[in-house]
Amino acid sequence: MSKVLPAGRTILASTIAKLYSEEIVQQVARLSFKPKIVGFLANNDPAGKMYANWTSKTCQDLGFNYELKELDREDLETELIKANNNDDVNGIMVYFPVFGDKQDQYLQQLISMDKDVEGLNFLYYKNLYHNVRFIDEAQTKKSILPCTPLAVVKILEYLGVYNKILRYGNRLYGKKIMVVNRSEIVGRPLAALLANDGATVYSVDINNIQQFTRGDDLSDHKHKVIELPGQDINELIPNCDVIITGVPSPNYKFPSELVKFGTTIINFSSEKNFNDDIKLKAGLYVPSIGKVTIAMLLRNLLRLLENKNKN
Amino acid sequence: MSKVLPAGRTILASTIAKLYSEEIVQQVARLSFKPKIVGFLANNDPAGKMYANWTSKTCQDLGFNYELKELDREDLETELIKANNNDDVNGIMVYFPVFGDKQDQYLQQLISMDKDVEGLNFLYYKNLYHNVRFIDEAQTKKSILPCTPLAVVKILEYLGVYNKILRYGNRLYGKKIMVVNRSEIVGRPLAALLANDGATVYSVDINNIQQFTRGDDLSDHKHKVIELPGQDINELIPNCDVIITGVPSPNYKFPSELVKFGTTIINFSSEKNFNDDIKLKAGLYVPSIGKVTIAMLLRNLLRLLENKNKN
Repeated sequence: MSKVLPAGRTILASTIAKLYSEEIVQQVARLSFKPKIVGFLANNDPAGKMYANWTSKTCQDLGFNYELKELDREDLETELIKANNNDDVNGIMVYFPVFGDKQDQYLQQLISMDKDVEGLNFLYYKNLYHNVRFIDEAQTKKSILPCTPLAVVKILEYLGVYNKILRYGNRLYGKKIMVVNRSEIVGRPLAALLANDGATVYSVDINNIQQFTRGDDLSDHKHKVIELPGQDINELIPNCDVIITGVPSPNYKFPSELVKFGTTIINFSSEKNFNDDIKLKAGLYVPSIGKVTIAMLLRNLLRLLENKNKN
Repeated sequence: MSKVLPAGRTILASTIAKLYSEEIVQQVARLSFKPKIVGFLANNDPAGKMYANWTSKTCQDLGFNYELKELDREDLETELIKANNNDDVNGIMVYFPVFGDKQDQYLQQLISMDKDVEGLNFLYYKNLYHNVRFIDEAQTKKSILPCTPLAVVKILEYLGVYNKILRYGNRLYGKKIMVVNRSEIVGRPLAALLANDGATVYSVDINNIQQFTRGDDLSDHKHKVIELPGQDINELIPNCDVIITGVPSPNYKFPSELVKFGTTIINFSSEKNFNDDIKLKAGLYVPSIGKVTIAMLLRNLLRLLENKNKN
């Protein structure tokens, strides 16, 4: 008599992205020109290429121009400077990693702040880490959030993990969230964002586990990070309300058997970090997030244009 | 620099009741008459009297007639039979306990099913326990839910504990909920309702702890109850997402110190089962629910009238 059917649901990124598309289309329609994004692919990465193709298609569908420039990585610096100075280019993105070392960070910071659709500029990061929402003192120009962490936040809002009845800044109060990835581009800023909203975040990478919380020093508007030396990840997993993974390896699989029933699961890696058995455990499972990330990219571009108008 | 301000919020029943009032007023306006509820107070209970006054005021505000009959408990049986047969009376409620023994159950079942605004009839309970929504085979007449458990469910929906992204019947999947009270009128049916929606419910009374879950036998549409002998309640409390209390004693206080940060707290007792320190722990705290219960009472009355129209 008993049936094994998932009690939870798998939610596709496209379902969530669609909610933003309409808003984006309306905003673009109000502009007197078609905004243009240039994407630089200098690493021959098939995942980057696929992501570029999606971005191109979404741009077309929503009323943007998108140009993909495939080039030798040695030419990237020069081309970025040209794009910074080209008034026809409104947004710039680079498919990282390119060199896979500090040179990548240099290239990121080389992108003009006004065209940085991915929100990678240090000023934007500083604002994120300190919970600052504007880039000017008059508070007219909104800061840009890095688009992948922003996509995860929007997904958590959609899934009802953010509780809208709680006050802004406390909407994740009491939630325990694991983030398996501590890259500077996604994992660390994401952990900070979630901690700033009241969650206890277990930030996991290959070396150690760190705990991000909002901390007590509200004057600093900065989350608090402590190391959890000797902490067994397997003991944390069954206590998590949300598990978010971004491990860029086809061999890595998260241990589904330790996940408690009803946990919210999000994978932002282009690899499948969960086997399908997670569906029998997860409350809500979002197997990939790319389409929401692209929507956030276009949302950021519109915000950059708004900020420019206020100059 | 650090401030101790509650991260959570206290939510008043009036805020939630208001959402239903408008709907109720609109429905009443569509009727060709003013529906009448008679309340029987046969126990001189000041809490019952207060609740009766609230009901009376709410009835007036929302377009109902309300008559309170204070009487000797020995006359209650006769008066209930009269009210059952009086076409001018649309809803009947009794402020229990009256005798405090099996006679009360007899009196409950004596109330005509068609006028049982509190949803105390055994048929309604049977439907609740078996997750049956209608009282007729053609599925045109909706079953009535007992108004206090229903009020708690509506409050949990408002608070976002029910996740609307999940499928109907699974919206509490993975949630751990403690209900301190196992009365036949509130605690037990509430535990069953929550288990039927996918939660694991720890039903606590003075004698023991029982665990209610949906169970595996979906063909029976009935929750599964097991005893948890020797289970220490103090070990369960920090794992609960929601704690609901209904202990009718001024001396009882729930141990706030064991509650984890962010827990949803609801007290349905007319006594204060929590000290104010719970506000520093709770995510959302609903200190009393009476006004929502009254709204559910009127909603039930409108449903009874709809069912009558379908005869």
